[in-house]
Amino acid sequence: MEDNQVLDRFEEMRELVNANLESIVEEQSAVFGEVAIVSGQIVLAGGKRIRPILVMLAYQLAGGDDLEEVIPLALSSEFIHSASLIHDDINDDSSTRRGQEAIHVKVGQAKAIIAGDWLFSQGFGLGARYDEEVVEVMAHYCSILASAEFSQIDHVLDLSTSPEDYLEIVRGKTAGPFAAGCKGAALVANASAENCEYLFEFGMELGIAFQLVDDLLDIRGDERMGKPRGSDIYEGKMTLPIIHALTILHGPQRVRLSEIIRNFEDSLFDELISLLNFGGSLNYSEILIRNHLERALSYLDHFEDCETKQLLKHVVKMVEKRHS
Amino acid sequence: MEDNQVLDRFEEMRELVNANLESIVEEQSAVFGEVAIVSGQIVLAGGKRIRPILVMLAYQLAGGDDLEEVIPLALSSEFIHSASLIHDDINDDSSTRRGQEAIHVKVGQAKAIIAGDWLFSQGFGLGARYDEEVVEVMAHYCSILASAEFSQIDHVLDLSTSPEDYLEIVRGKTAGPFAAGCKGAALVANASAENCEYLFEFGMELGIAFQLVDDLLDIRGDERMGKPRGSDIYEGKMTLPIIHALTILHGPQRVRLSEIIRNFEDSLFDELISLLNFGGSLNYSEILIRNHLERALSYLDHFEDCETKQLLKHVVKMVEKRHS
Repeated sequence: MEDNQVLDRFEEMRELVNANLESIVEEQSAVFGEVAIVSGQIVLAGGKRIRPILVMLAYQLAGGDDLEEVIPLALSSEFIHSASLIHDDINDDSSTRRGQEAIHVKVGQAKAIIAGDWLFSQGFGLGARYDEEVVEVMAHYCSILASAEFSQIDHVLDLSTSPEDYLEIVRGKTAGPFAAGCKGAALVANASAENCEYLFEFGMELGIAFQLVDDLLDIRGDERMGKPRGSDIYEGKMTLPIIHALTILHGPQRVRLSEIIRNFEDSLFDELISLLNFGGSLNYSEILIRNHLERALSYLDHFEDCETKQLLKHVVKMVEKRHS
Repeated sequence: MEDNQVLDRFEEMRELVNANLESIVEEQSAVFGEVAIVSGQIVLAGGKRIRPILVMLAYQLAGGDDLEEVIPLALSSEFIHSASLIHDDINDDSSTRRGQEAIHVKVGQAKAIIAGDWLFSQGFGLGARYDEEVVEVMAHYCSILASAEFSQIDHVLDLSTSPEDYLEIVRGKTAGPFAAGCKGAALVANASAENCEYLFEFGMELGIAFQLVDDLLDIRGDERMGKPRGSDIYEGKMTLPIIHALTILHGPQRVRLSEIIRNFEDSLFDELISLLNFGGSLNYSEILIRNHLERALSYLDHFEDCETKQLLKHVVKMVEKRHS
């Protein structure tokens, strides 16, 4: 397949996801009224649809030949993701999401909490039609997600956060749902236990890289994030470049970095970046991203070459390109 | 069965529920850490366990003969109920629940939102092992619950709220989950479509009565509520006695009632009660409660007399007695 054909196929999948999401939101809005309309807005506001597309591709790579069979699982992952975004935005006091006003700003916090719950119900309802094994993988990673969010809250402005703490949070919050989606899809496709694990690990590695890229983009600034530059720093989130720099730097530089993190404002960006560069911390994150993406690719080696594998490699490239 | 045997059997069921909840919370705390511990505290803090017991009894009345089969569904209803309590308490800014400090007071709002999400995951995970039909009933009523909560928020301090608006909210928020639990249990027991509907309607009528009683207890004050008297009024919730009185009263009495509701404080309780009594509004609620409980009982008439039926009648009596 040529590169532009890959792009076309990818775009087709995204449109398939969008069409399905639109039709569910429309249908549910007629039944459930405002809660579905409000929640639907966040679901339909865009986003890369990387989670549902991964579910569909993992299903096909694992040998599934009836895409319809896995679509509810794919949509389930997007609904649950959207639900967690709404609750995250409340907790982070973020006022924008996907380039729009966050829901809790639009309709107030009380309705936003409920809107998230509604999306969880939708997501679980869609996911529950599968075999117990699939449901267990998905439900387990939703629980891990909550556990990781607790840990993230505990580490806000905790300057002693270790890279291990950080990776544990990333595995729970971002990579776990990627991995569970890929494994769940493989289970739906009746793949061998081995192939289910390969796809699980593929999702995990890709998800870790994805979050590392997100964290870099937050520091460097990128309008694709749909939220202001430096949001993580303002929220006191300990991301890897910062954790790394706090480990590497000593004396007055470390003291200054701590001060900057504790009292961050936009005017401190340049100084922050130069401290992170001095510690080689942005570079360190970039190397880790490449490592995790290479590991992700290595799990694909277990599968025969095919169009679907090309598309999954394209997803890996997309994640890589976001930070370049 | 003698009355005290009924009580003993009921207590046995409650203990069965509690033992199962305790073992899940203990198991999950080992896996998920603080989020499970914190969420588990609210689950284990007590409560009547009326929802899971109803699920088990409905299953048995519908002909189910392997109680183990329905226990995950019963527990699922309690987890989802606990999740919605946590989020409600945030939204209502309630500081106590089941006689304890509310979770958001204990661990902060951010963790409380996530704790609720974790409980939803647990609840859905437990419920998802059943056939699609069962899952659909449960997921549908979780969505209706969210929709009803939106409506309740919209009607805060809305003095034009009609009894129909109120009943719609009660059906969604309280009675729907009761009804769905009973119907879901009947489906698990492979009951006839007719018997599933009878149990659904039984749950709906019982649930409406349950909420009407709750609302009366809030006005009259009762330490069994586990929260301060008048909480609903402070939160601007339009409950039936108030809606009824606003409809019946005219002139200066209606004006005064509106003032009291808008600027409520404890010293106004006596005046509020005397206005509600003047309108016959507490009495009206009591009559409605009896009507709904009688209707609930009439749905049990479709089933043969048996111990389980006696236990369900006991639950009806429990609901009735709470307000007497």
